[in-house]
Amino acid sequence: MSHKIVRRIQRPNAETIKILGSAGVATVHEAQGRSGLLRPYMRPIYPTARVAGPAVTVSCQPGDNLMIHASIEVCHPGDILVVVTTSESTDGMFGELLGVSCQAHGIAGLIIDAGVRDTAELATMSFPVWAKAVSAQGTVKGTAGDVNIPVVCAGAMINPGDVIVADADGVVVVPRETAGQVAQASEQRIAKEERSRQRLRTGELGLDFYGLRAKLVELGVEFVDEDTKTAGR
Amino acid sequence: MSHKIVRRIQRPNAETIKILGSAGVATVHEAQGRSGLLRPYMRPIYPTARVAGPAVTVSCQPGDNLMIHASIEVCHPGDILVVVTTSESTDGMFGELLGVSCQAHGIAGLIIDAGVRDTAELATMSFPVWAKAVSAQGTVKGTAGDVNIPVVCAGAMINPGDVIVADADGVVVVPRETAGQVAQASEQRIAKEERSRQRLRTGELGLDFYGLRAKLVELGVEFVDEDTKTAGR
Amino acid sequence: MSHKIVRRIQRPNAETIKILGSAGVATVHEAQGRSGLLRPYMRPIYPTARVAGPAVTVSCQPGDNLMIHASIEVCHPGDILVVVTTSESTDGMFGELLGVSCQAHGIAGLIIDAGVRDTAELATMSFPVWAKAVSAQGTVKGTAGDVNIPVVCAGAMINPGDVIVADADGVVVVPRETAGQVAQASEQRIAKEERSRQRLRTGELGLDFYGLRAKLVELGVEFVDEDTKTAGR
Amino acid sequence: MSHKIVRRIQRPNAETIKILGSAGVATVHEAQGRSGLLRPYMRPIYPTARVAGPAVTVSCQPGDNLMIHASIEVCHPGDILVVVTTSESTDGMFGELLGVSCQAHGIAGLIIDAGVRDTAELATMSFPVWAKAVSAQGTVKGTAGDVNIPVVCAGAMINPGDVIVADADGVVVVPRETAGQVAQASEQRIAKEERSRQRLRTGELGLDFYGLRAKLVELGVEFVDEDTKTAGR
Amino acid sequence: MSHKIVRRIQRPNAETIKILGSAGVATVHEAQGRSGLLRPYMRPIYPTARVAGPAVTVSCQPGDNLMIHASIEVCHPGDILVVVTTSESTDGMFGELLGVSCQAHGIAGLIIDAGVRDTAELATMSFPVWAKAVSAQGTVKGTAGDVNIPVVCAGAMINPGDVIVADADGVVVVPRETAGQVAQASEQRIAKEERSRQRLRTGELGLDFYGLRAKLVELGVEFVDEDTKTAGR
Amino acid sequence: MSHKIVRRIQRPNAETIKILGSAGVATVHEAQGRSGLLRPYMRPIYPTARVAGPAVTVSCQPGDNLMIHASIEVCHPGDILVVVTTSESTDGMFGELLGVSCQAHGIAGLIIDAGVRDTAELATMSFPVWAKAVSAQGTVKGTAGDVNIPVVCAGAMINPGDVIVADADGVVVVPRETAGQVAQASEQRIAKEERSRQRLRTGELGLDFYGLRAKLVELGVEFVDEDTKTAGR
Repeated sequence: MSHKIVRRIQRPNAETIKILGSAGVATVHEAQGRSGLLRPYMRPIYPTARVAGPAVTVSCQPGDNLMIHASIEVCHPGDILVVVTTSESTDGMFGELLGVSCQAHGIAGLIIDAGVRDTAELATMSFPVWAKAVSAQGTVKGTAGDVNIPVVCAGAMINPGDVIVADADGVVVVPRETAGQVAQASEQRIAKEERSRQRLRTGELGLDFYGLRAKLVELGVEFVDEDTKTAGR
Repeated sequence: MSHKIVRRIQRPNAETIKILGSAGVATVHEAQGRSGLLRPYMRPIYPTARVAGPAVTVSCQPGDNLMIHASIEVCHPGDILVVVTTSESTDGMFGELLGVSCQAHGIAGLIIDAGVRDTAELATMSFPVWAKAVSAQGTVKGTAGDVNIPVVCAGAMINPGDVIVADADGVVVVPRETAGQVAQASEQRIAKEERSRQRLRTGELGLDFYGLRAKLVELGVEFVDEDTKTAGR
Repeated sequence: MSHKIVRRIQRPNAETIKILGSAGVATVHEAQGRSGLLRPYMRPIYPTARVAGPAVTVSCQPGDNLMIHASIEVCHPGDILVVVTTSESTDGMFGELLGVSCQAHGIAGLIIDAGVRDTAELATMSFPVWAKAVSAQGTVKGTAGDVNIPVVCAGAMINPGDVIVADADGVVVVPRETAGQVAQASEQRIAKEERSRQRLRTGELGLDFYGLRAKLVELGVEFVDEDTKTAGR
Repeated sequence: MSHKIVRRIQRPNAETIKILGSAGVATVHEAQGRSGLLRPYMRPIYPTARVAGPAVTVSCQPGDNLMIHASIEVCHPGDILVVVTTSESTDGMFGELLGVSCQAHGIAGLIIDAGVRDTAELATMSFPVWAKAVSAQGTVKGTAGDVNIPVVCAGAMINPGDVIVADADGVVVVPRETAGQVAQASEQRIAKEERSRQRLRTGELGLDFYGLRAKLVELGVEFVDEDTKTAGR
Repeated sequence: MSHKIVRRIQRPNAETIKILGSAGVATVHEAQGRSGLLRPYMRPIYPTARVAGPAVTVSCQPGDNLMIHASIEVCHPGDILVVVTTSESTDGMFGELLGVSCQAHGIAGLIIDAGVRDTAELATMSFPVWAKAVSAQGTVKGTAGDVNIPVVCAGAMINPGDVIVADADGVVVVPRETAGQVAQASEQRIAKEERSRQRLRTGELGLDFYGLRAKLVELGVEFVDEDTKTAGR
Repeated sequence: MSHKIVRRIQRPNAETIKILGSAGVATVHEAQGRSGLLRPYMRPIYPTARVAGPAVTVSCQPGDNLMIHASIEVCHPGDILVVVTTSESTDGMFGELLGVSCQAHGIAGLIIDAGVRDTAELATMSFPVWAKAVSAQGTVKGTAGDVNIPVVCAGAMINPGDVIVADADGVVVVPRETAGQVAQASEQRIAKEERSRQRLRTGELGLDFYGLRAKLVELGVEFVDEDTKTAGR
């Protein structure tokens, strides 16, 4: 039942974060072997929201944002707050005032497996948030929690200092230890995809150059000219 | 089983409505003691939708919009239609033609715990709607219901003449009887928040000026420099 | 367990498709007797997305997009891909590269009862997609499926060659056999709605010119001036 | 923001409660004009659970059961606790120890729009509970709430002293003021249904003795011997 | 917009139905190539419910059970009612009186993509029902619908006369045209599974006798004795 | 993208497991500081299901049960399979034949964040399963995954060898490293609860002996004899 706030965490290399952020969620998720994606219910509050940075994790009682307040002073510029609750909640635990405080400390964004409010103001401030819900429901400040412990956020395991990448497609987490390799793999994937893009643009079929036509044959899929059974209703 | 349409309701003071509307949902919800918020599944059909006004309530059979048609003539300019169904439904009970009719009678907006359609047209007309779903599903006009009776809408109790405030954060209801006090409390809250905003902008921590640091100590939350346990995967 | 790809399907008349597309989802759904609407969880990835065209249907294993690759070469310009999975899934089975390939073959849009990714890129390309979820979750290419068989998509029965109409209100399917009649009925409905719009704009009530006032009486709905019961909380 | 515990409430007549309880949820709901039903997600924790009694209402912060503890001393034997939270929660706010305490005070059952735990023990004790979820998630005791104020529970408005009727079909609330009439109407309905049951048992059709055949004709439903269109897949 | 009741449908062979019913849902679903399963939200109202028979299909307006009444006289003994609504609904469209009427006409069970009520009474009568929800919510009888047209029920396409098989695992539909083949394939599968069961009981591994060990190697899955990375929290 | 099967894991003490299992989910969850609970959607397939044991973890592609087959030979008697998928799925990945195989190897139960089938047969065999869904949907065996890596299951982080405790209230995980302490704390809690139970049975109030009456005063909750506001509808 003991709770703690961990002041110092290890952060990944800034260049690595930059590469991952520019690669984007879908590419990074593929580059690390289709892992680390948060559940698709995590949506940005404005369509152009896009961010990458190290995670500072926060675990709260549902309906209580005390630990978010407690987390701000341990953040470094560029960090991303990752907030979870000990059971499911959609309460609006974060609003414009906390956004102002975050920006004053250089915090780059928020991933919250709960609700957010003052979304219009946060969008105007360009403070990017990915949340489960938009809700004005206010919260109390009465129960202990933790800062910078490993958490499960929207189905993904996140350790403090892991890289968070978030854009219109959602949110992915990259473990700090493998971030460098994943950044490299992401760049390779981008190069490869650019070659595929060129070929697809000319009308060439993925079916052919990914070798899938043979796969269809192997699986016994039959090509027929017309469906002989009468379709109907 | 008897149903009725109540023609005359009491409405709150216009100035009160104006103050509440300009304060917005999150502030008003806090100002009245964190009550009156509708469930967060109620979303605006366009991001800049924002309205405040007295509720004219409508209770319908699911899939049947007869009573919406019946409600329009009892509305006054500035009123907001609040539509509920006797069991859950996402059918598109309201569309552009009803929007045209509403605007012709000065109705300021719609809160519907069901579906809405013609959303592109309604957005173009600047007729704000908060709904549970966007659905083109058409409805019949065959079953009796009520106008201007107390209703439960998206989890909140709403009496005719209560003030509805709605914006990007959702929808809140303020009882007519306490609207004046809540408007006053909202103004005070805005002033207080502005003072907090100034301090937060300079980097001061909410943790300090809300006195939460003492709370953490009281709750036994420990500050540690580093997590001695090896995190991993 | 045998699977097939049907190369040739019958398509409806281009003029019919054009009329249905310009009428839009809500009108077409009403014009064919309030049928054919897909579940309202099917949402466009950008607000101005709008399309109409013949369906090329694709049935996939969840988490496997092999058959989408297989479907592209049987499409004609103007066709719309309709993708379903054999059990529920939100995986991102379609992204920007497939979008490029689709556009190279003139495919006009995608209806997918699963997830989509690279939504920002697809919006920039103006490739319209209606999906159940936005998800970067990658997929494999290992299990057989079918192209151009009858499918159930988001609760609606769709045969290859049926007309898909999709806009901000959702997606509706019109059987190929009755598409001509429905197009005609849609035009009539538009004309009739324009007449209603004119009358509603002047403040006339639908209650009166749809004859609903008599209906209220028949149903025993009572008009009262004031609610004599004290409302309260 | 002020909170209160109301000690004295008016309760309905014991005979009325007995009649309503023996009539059951479906009959009572129909007898009062198809109103008062709680959302169908409210399920009993064991199949034979069945109860009727006056409501003592409790409003709690999500994840906090302080006010349940506070409510027990204001209950009379036969009362039913009706517990709601100020925003959605599935936490297990009530378990076996509270059940023991309730039974010591003669409380007849629990309706909770949140979670319950120790369900095996509660079933063994024959303490009936209708809940939104079964969850062992523990709760704190730190935030004020209210006892015996009007609440919205699972979509229904409930005042203290209203009659709760609950069985395998769910939960219905009957306003205290009209409970006597509804009890009478329930008895009439039971008698009428018994007559229908006798006729249906002999093979007579509801279509005939409810006069629905004429309704079908009026609505233009056509009887055809065979579907001339070829059904298929 | 025209609606019809089709009196005569073709039914499959009784022996075929018997075989499919005794094979059960999981076996039949596999035997026909993993197709025809209804969504898993369709649950039996009592655990031992089990039935097989030809489908008589019914399409209703949500919240309106007129067409269920209209369907009973076209049923033959052994038939199963399959009820859908034109948009999603959980209303309790079917209860004990309709169950009595069904049993008087030899109807063997009900599949309803909506709600059911009087579940305790229906269980006592041994009238098996698979439904989306248990709800006492009553319905009206005012809008036309259809009997014995192709329908989509819980995501599956069902034609009148198709075989419905339902048990504790859910509901599967077998097209009438292929029911004989599927019955045969089901019997073969049962025999094959019995041989597997014998081997598994002795401790033999499916990994070996299904040849999956080679598959793991082919996919590059590595066997390691211990995880060298330190797991932690 | 590399996948592995870890053959050897550390398991907790048998006596510790026995104590945790007999304490049950709610007690263990409290004893470890209200942590480790899986989401409440994880439900037992029969009401008396109850089990405790070390976790063998399995990560699968959705709709693919290859890795479940691969996991059986690394299990020891008493182990519990914990199965997750890389994205959400309700497919029936586990049925009676796998249950027979598990029992032949002494496996004590299954926790699966997906679907299960043959539930009647598994109940008859007394093989306890907690699952997200009951579904007959069959699966393929074509994509690599992992055995005995850390996983997130229904929102909880689980390492191989952690203790799983499951009963009618759901599922809780206890980290192997702290299992001994949690077992001890559970025993203390049981003793303390027995003392509370004795007092509650006599009618003493938790409000008094937990000291909550003072808390109510501190929070400003007011006791009033009657609600002076007129409640109504």
